[in-house]
Amino acid sequence: MKFTINRAAFIGQLNNVLRAVSSKSTIPILTGLKLVVDNNEVVLTGSDADISIETTLSGADGQYQLTVEEPGAIVLPARFFSDIVKKLPDQQVTIAVTDGFQAQIMSGTAEFVINGQDANNYPHLPEIDTAASFEVAADLFADVIRQTQIAVSHQESRPILTGIHVSLADGILTAVATDSHRLSQRKVRLENVGERQVDVVIPGTSLTELSRMIGDVKDPVKIQVTDNQALFVFGNTRFYSRLLEGNYPDTSRLIPDTSETTVELDASAFLAAIERASLLSHQSRNNVVKLTVDPQAGLAKVSGNSADIGNVEENIATDRMEGSDLEISFNPDFMGDALKSFGQAKIILSFTTALRPFTLVPTEDSDQFVQLITPVRTY
Amino acid sequence: MKFTINRAAFIGQLNNVLRAVSSKSTIPILTGLKLVVDNNEVVLTGSDADISIETTLSGADGQYQLTVEEPGAIVLPARFFSDIVKKLPDQQVTIAVTDGFQAQIMSGTAEFVINGQDANNYPHLPEIDTAASFEVAADLFADVIRQTQIAVSHQESRPILTGIHVSLADGILTAVATDSHRLSQRKVRLENVGERQVDVVIPGTSLTELSRMIGDVKDPVKIQVTDNQALFVFGNTRFYSRLLEGNYPDTSRLIPDTSETTVELDASAFLAAIERASLLSHQSRNNVVKLTVDPQAGLAKVSGNSADIGNVEENIATDRMEGSDLEISFNPDFMGDALKSFGQAKIILSFTTALRPFTLVPTEDSDQFVQLITPVRTY
Repeated sequence: MKFTINRAAFIGQLNNVLRAVSSKSTIPILTGLKLVVDNNEVVLTGSDADISIETTLSGADGQYQLTVEEPGAIVLPARFFSDIVKKLPDQQVTIAVTDGFQAQIMSGTAEFVINGQDANNYPHLPEIDTAASFEVAADLFADVIRQTQIAVSHQESRPILTGIHVSLADGILTAVATDSHRLSQRKVRLENVGERQVDVVIPGTSLTELSRMIGDVKDPVKIQVTDNQALFVFGNTRFYSRLLEGNYPDTSRLIPDTSETTVELDASAFLAAIERASLLSHQSRNNVVKLTVDPQAGLAKVSGNSADIGNVEENIATDRMEGSDLEISFNPDFMGDALKSFGQAKIILSFTTALRPFTLVPTEDSDQFVQLITPVRTY
Repeated sequence: MKFTINRAAFIGQLNNVLRAVSSKSTIPILTGLKLVVDNNEVVLTGSDADISIETTLSGADGQYQLTVEEPGAIVLPARFFSDIVKKLPDQQVTIAVTDGFQAQIMSGTAEFVINGQDANNYPHLPEIDTAASFEVAADLFADVIRQTQIAVSHQESRPILTGIHVSLADGILTAVATDSHRLSQRKVRLENVGERQVDVVIPGTSLTELSRMIGDVKDPVKIQVTDNQALFVFGNTRFYSRLLEGNYPDTSRLIPDTSETTVELDASAFLAAIERASLLSHQSRNNVVKLTVDPQAGLAKVSGNSADIGNVEENIATDRMEGSDLEISFNPDFMGDALKSFGQAKIILSFTTALRPFTLVPTEDSDQFVQLITPVRTY
């Protein structure tokens, strides 16, 4: 194996594949990066058993300035190899396998020799046929993940809740996550998916990693699922994730369809007030912030306190308030995560009683996106 | 106590004073920030007992837009107070002491009430007369600290070596630090200091903190020392540091005045090669990099290795080499720190034997600045 490549372009692809590589792994070879060199391409693979990322660097793509002298394959220590490549002196780097599983890395007058492993010992990635895949615009799919991953559970006690429930039916893609204290749901209408049906639970960590990679991808992401894997194809990259086994709870009945009190306001201004109040609630034992709404008097107020340190009170600006008086307490971090998912938008908060879950929806496309939060009982 | 001030200008000064405040302190009141409000100024004080910083915000300085309604004083929890001020909604903030030691912080519609402490319980800063102080250009003094603090010891076994030895004699300011493996010495000629003599050891941590504050100060820093304190005055800020007690070892005889081998090269290019070699040495038990010099053959080479991972070898570019052949091993982190202190300059490395300390000096002003490193015996 021997090839020469443009170092900057190579580093860009290395960084992508490294997202899947964990520096500690119960399977030692997975701390490595697999390089497979063909006549006119280099394929990089990284995996932590949950996620696998495979990127193809083609000689046809001029940015790589790729010259292959000899095909071959090797597994090199991933972090260490990438640290070396990043620090090399020259614009080009030549990588060659010499005796056995030793690799030579040459750039300018610097020459590294590092110990690798036999590429035949690297686990095989699942073979997935992408002929029947469906497509979603990359930036839209990244938004869907960003808006729902906040409610993914980090508790291993109910493993199924550490995933995002992704389904496709009647041309509508739905993503739902809940940790049983809050819930995020986003729907997107897809074109050209025909009668295609999908119903899978994908680990939240996989999708969060994926969303970081596709945020500025121009082409749509091709998605294909099998019994136990999901595959996302974009640009020259294939991103594999295992699926979670088990049935996701039925979340459709959790979202209330009536309300007693509604408040319309600016998400980002309200977020700033919540963050101020949380400065105090974070210092107290039960991290709770209170919202008091009096639609008749036109008053809405956020307050927080910590017995040791002090208290805070702030009147908040609203665009519209309707319904009954209300005093409701909640975790300001849940509220903050939900508000951030709306960006600069105007939103509607809908409450039933002080002890029932309440919802946040954008004023536009309010049936496409909902954040639900369970309040905290403070007495 | 009650005053209103421009929030952005206030935050700038808060950040400066916070440098002295540690969030954990054996003296609880030192986790606080003292505010003293006079008719037309606010004085902020922070201290961790080693360093104290006092900043005066004068109403005469328009950027503060200061209005004092009522003089007074209070101590407020430092980090928490500054977090609040940073998150407030309005351009202005009003701070008032209400009942007892409670402070009200108002900005826009947000109103915080936080518990403070009696300012009379805050330790008094030493009273130091600055009439006889001497002056050093701020950016120059920041350089002197930056160039010598790398050799300060972090071992409490010899406390005196955790300081920088600062002396002034015959119009020359000398700063020296050594951890007994390496030594940094910088000399600067000062104007208008007459017969002034100074000989003190200032904690390295104090000077490093000071250097971060004065890097972009225009006016010179006024320096005054007493038996147990040093005071640095710049702009509207007074920076106090305790001194270390005891005699600093005589370092003047440690710097060799002859050499067998000299190499002249570019500090930043050599640094890059050392950092590449250290990628491997950092993976081995005895973090060592080897330099091989053969002036007759015109060859200089850096190499590193780790039994587990591999090895690296790199020919380095030199401007001039003279003297005997040499093979010398050293800690690449010590070499890296020393090389960084020269920036982009050309430097001269001077060696006697493979087991004796060697020096690095800039080709210009070579008698003003020296870095010394003790090699590592590898056999």
